[in-house]
Amino acid sequence: MSSSPLVEQLIEALRCLPGVGQKSAQRMAFHLLQRDRKGASHLANLLQTSVERVGHCQQCRTLTEDTICHLCSSARRDRSKLCIVESPVDVQMIEHAADYQGVYFVLMGHLSPLDGLGPNEIGLDILAKRLDEGEITEVILATNATVEGEATAHYIAEMVHSCNIQVTRIAHGVPLGGELEYVNMTTLSHAFSGRKEV
Amino acid sequence: MSSSPLVEQLIEALRCLPGVGQKSAQRMAFHLLQRDRKGASHLANLLQTSVERVGHCQQCRTLTEDTICHLCSSARRDRSKLCIVESPVDVQMIEHAADYQGVYFVLMGHLSPLDGLGPNEIGLDILAKRLDEGEITEVILATNATVEGEATAHYIAEMVHSCNIQVTRIAHGVPLGGELEYVNMTTLSHAFSGRKEV
Repeated sequence: MSSSPLVEQLIEALRCLPGVGQKSAQRMAFHLLQRDRKGASHLANLLQTSVERVGHCQQCRTLTEDTICHLCSSARRDRSKLCIVESPVDVQMIEHAADYQGVYFVLMGHLSPLDGLGPNEIGLDILAKRLDEGEITEVILATNATVEGEATAHYIAEMVHSCNIQVTRIAHGVPLGGELEYVNMTTLSHAFSGRKEV
Repeated sequence: MSSSPLVEQLIEALRCLPGVGQKSAQRMAFHLLQRDRKGASHLANLLQTSVERVGHCQQCRTLTEDTICHLCSSARRDRSKLCIVESPVDVQMIEHAADYQGVYFVLMGHLSPLDGLGPNEIGLDILAKRLDEGEITEVILATNATVEGEATAHYIAEMVHSCNIQVTRIAHGVPLGGELEYVNMTTLSHAFSGRKEV
């Protein structure tokens, strides 16, 4: 029996966070209550506000509290390039890492027929409409390098080809700073078959 | 620039959790908003309620939403034994692991004069009053086996001795299932000097 049913409930609720088990949840609950009540209150407030106000951008489907997200409504972005990613976190990664000035389309997942995720569930109907508008000249496929990501990329590539729009896939191979010895065999084999003249 | 300032703020707020950096906070925020809004709402609610209602038990100082915590007010506990620990999580650990039927006193920290934590900050004035009441016949020191924990245990031991009450310290040594090869030298040396006849 714990000394506080409320603290027990808080520990249980913290376990809804990915990667947080019983021990971490305990540590978090006691840390917040002993040392950072202001932070806990602030977090509670932002969680509730986000749940209530964050929806999907009508153009790119990413998570946003606006009808059209900042990136889609920015006048400085190149609307002829469309980069397709699986999730909003990928948009942030590319924004931080790459010098990409185009816009995005976020699938919010990947094709997975067994889980009931068909083309419409990942927004390919909305994508088809955008391709029809004729503004886009290049589609960059940046889905994950997983089996599902590759299958999704392949499906979208076919779709884009049929609209006579250029379609590219981001490069896959040995990561920079990576030693051949520690790279997995599939990546290495992919890097070999995708070798370029220098 | 992110697609949503609100999501950015949520990610920042999640970093107040111990052991959560930028990457984990991102993953948590997107997981909650994409897949578990109900869980996020529930967590927000419990965080706020806990911050507002959880205080300290007037007898043992642990975190609780009641004036006197469940353990202190239980009729089934042996009030002659008092176990002293550093934090509420230690109470839970002992409750789960040991067959202890006494009550607890939670220091909510340890002596640390350089951080301004003197005897009164860890509640030793309250402890002194309890010792004076004459109900306690044994004080069990279960502070951490760290330098600060040992110093705190030593200080409290002196205090309890002066009240002519028995004082014990939990055993330290090689953990069960632990191989000598992997135990640190201080623990091994401690285990040797504390050897018992069998």
